[in-house]
Amino acid sequence: MEDVQPVDSSAIEEARERHLKLTKPPGSLGRLEELGARLAGMAGESPPPAPESPAVVVCAGDHGVLERGVSPWPKEVTAAMVGNFCNGGAAVNAIANTVGARVSVLDVGVASDLDRHPLLRGGKVRAGTDDLSRGTAMSREEAARAVMAGSGVAEELIESGGVDLIVTGDMGIGNTTPAACLIGAFTGRSPEEVTGRGTGIDDETLELKVGVVRDALALHDPDAGDPLGALAAVGGLEHAAICGVILTGAVYGVPVLLDGVISNSAALVAQALAPDSAGYMIAGHRSAEPGAGIALEKLDLESLLDLEMRLGEGTGALLAVPLVQAAARVMGEMATLEDLGFGPEEGG
Amino acid sequence: MEDVQPVDSSAIEEARERHLKLTKPPGSLGRLEELGARLAGMAGESPPPAPESPAVVVCAGDHGVLERGVSPWPKEVTAAMVGNFCNGGAAVNAIANTVGARVSVLDVGVASDLDRHPLLRGGKVRAGTDDLSRGTAMSREEAARAVMAGSGVAEELIESGGVDLIVTGDMGIGNTTPAACLIGAFTGRSPEEVTGRGTGIDDETLELKVGVVRDALALHDPDAGDPLGALAAVGGLEHAAICGVILTGAVYGVPVLLDGVISNSAALVAQALAPDSAGYMIAGHRSAEPGAGIALEKLDLESLLDLEMRLGEGTGALLAVPLVQAAARVMGEMATLEDLGFGPEEGG
Repeated sequence: MEDVQPVDSSAIEEARERHLKLTKPPGSLGRLEELGARLAGMAGESPPPAPESPAVVVCAGDHGVLERGVSPWPKEVTAAMVGNFCNGGAAVNAIANTVGARVSVLDVGVASDLDRHPLLRGGKVRAGTDDLSRGTAMSREEAARAVMAGSGVAEELIESGGVDLIVTGDMGIGNTTPAACLIGAFTGRSPEEVTGRGTGIDDETLELKVGVVRDALALHDPDAGDPLGALAAVGGLEHAAICGVILTGAVYGVPVLLDGVISNSAALVAQALAPDSAGYMIAGHRSAEPGAGIALEKLDLESLLDLEMRLGEGTGALLAVPLVQAAARVMGEMATLEDLGFGPEEGG
Repeated sequence: MEDVQPVDSSAIEEARERHLKLTKPPGSLGRLEELGARLAGMAGESPPPAPESPAVVVCAGDHGVLERGVSPWPKEVTAAMVGNFCNGGAAVNAIANTVGARVSVLDVGVASDLDRHPLLRGGKVRAGTDDLSRGTAMSREEAARAVMAGSGVAEELIESGGVDLIVTGDMGIGNTTPAACLIGAFTGRSPEEVTGRGTGIDDETLELKVGVVRDALALHDPDAGDPLGALAAVGGLEHAAICGVILTGAVYGVPVLLDGVISNSAALVAQALAPDSAGYMIAGHRSAEPGAGIALEKLDLESLLDLEMRLGEGTGALLAVPLVQAAARVMGEMATLEDLGFGPEEGG
């Protein structure tokens, strides 16, 4: 894989200066202004081009740790939901349609064999992970192959599909447990701090889940300095694939809009592998999971939306697509105060 | 004007029940779920139709109170910005284009004569208000005519234009001062609590502005039980027009997406005139103005976005258009758990 280049700090500076000249009081577009400047940094030009072809990549996998009872949903739901994505019946489809994003689904590790479908990219590395609380979730080689599977989908979308904004999504019953482990591993925070209720578990199951995360971190003592090793030990196949999607977006200079806690945990792995990749990440939606906020802090990102969603699939981040587009479009399309005959010095 | 009908509580209940059956954990779409239920209540059917033809109405007027020095911007900026809206060079244009909304501009009270333009609706009641801190801003009749001007534009957009989601916007140098007065009048809160920095004034100007609001409320002692009288005494022409836009949306059962503090203050007048109109309002973006939060509390609304924007024009609310569309689309397009062979009882 080519190197990730740092974002262009002179384009960021140019963008901030441009914002002062547009027909509005300075700073009045709030967080859209800094987002626009960041997009300029990613694109290496100000004003930045407005993304016109967004796509969401939903990476799917199963989890051996589900045997420990960390979720009330059976693992068969993962495959059923992948079918639902392909048939257009899931929340991600309705929301992607709303914002004009195409949907790709990557089977990187669903436990059962899936029917072929035009939306479904094959990339299965193995039929789900092993129980990370009793051994490594997968081998280093399998983790690397899952990363490459995600990279491959992103590369194809960008190279052949003209995609200029990538949204990360996930599906995998039980996948908030490896996410919590990864966040613990890369931030050093405690199992109690990084573990949450996922799709909505009760107090008893939460206690059990915290214990599983504690067991896993104690068993593997994952090393943040060996990101692939940590990913293999306590991660998931879709987490690895999302990491690959992110890194490839960054290599191409394409903004990557992160969904909730699964994407946030995968982003920590990407950051550890290529620190400059964080410059291409945008946090779409604030996950209700406590680990999400901890991961975003480490990534130095603040999420754009907080709608109390906790579904995954890319749904939260997709809702932020128009915000990213608007942040770029205001910079490219607005008139300047000078055009209107008012110098910026007249504003207070 | 016809009466505003209360929203349909049985459609709201039906929508909530439907959400429990869709292919996702219960509640996992967070605030989109309650928004979808509210849309069902407005439409009187579940699932609610997804808005396909949004439009923003930017109501523009000038303010005699500007003489008191409440803003550093000269009043000529109002007319210049209306020209900018018509020429497509403002933030509202770029953001409306992003979300597929059409833009209408209503001159209900700009101080100078404006050139004709296809986007500009003529409805000028008078060339700006009088200084509300020294007398009434306008007469009751003028306030009523400004309300009707807003109603007329909304009616035309809905009846002839097929608009099914209305976004309120405003332009008027100095217009956060009448907004603060209206919010004070309808909530009983103090001038200090309801007055903010508008587009960004310094401490000294803020102190002066609080004093102006205090003077105005003391002079008129506006009666919340006489909404039109309060509007005439301490309001603005664009505030009145936005009130008309809101009421007409509500009469037609069309959702009205409110922008920042100007729209919030106009919404209080609409609520006082027709209490059931609040059922058709959606708070798009949380304004940085302190009065906005106070007004939304009175309206029992919580804003969808908080991007620290403080521009007006409808920009913040426009960014929430895809959220409203998505809230309806997930209800209409998602498969049910039963379709996939999973009963809802399997979710935890």
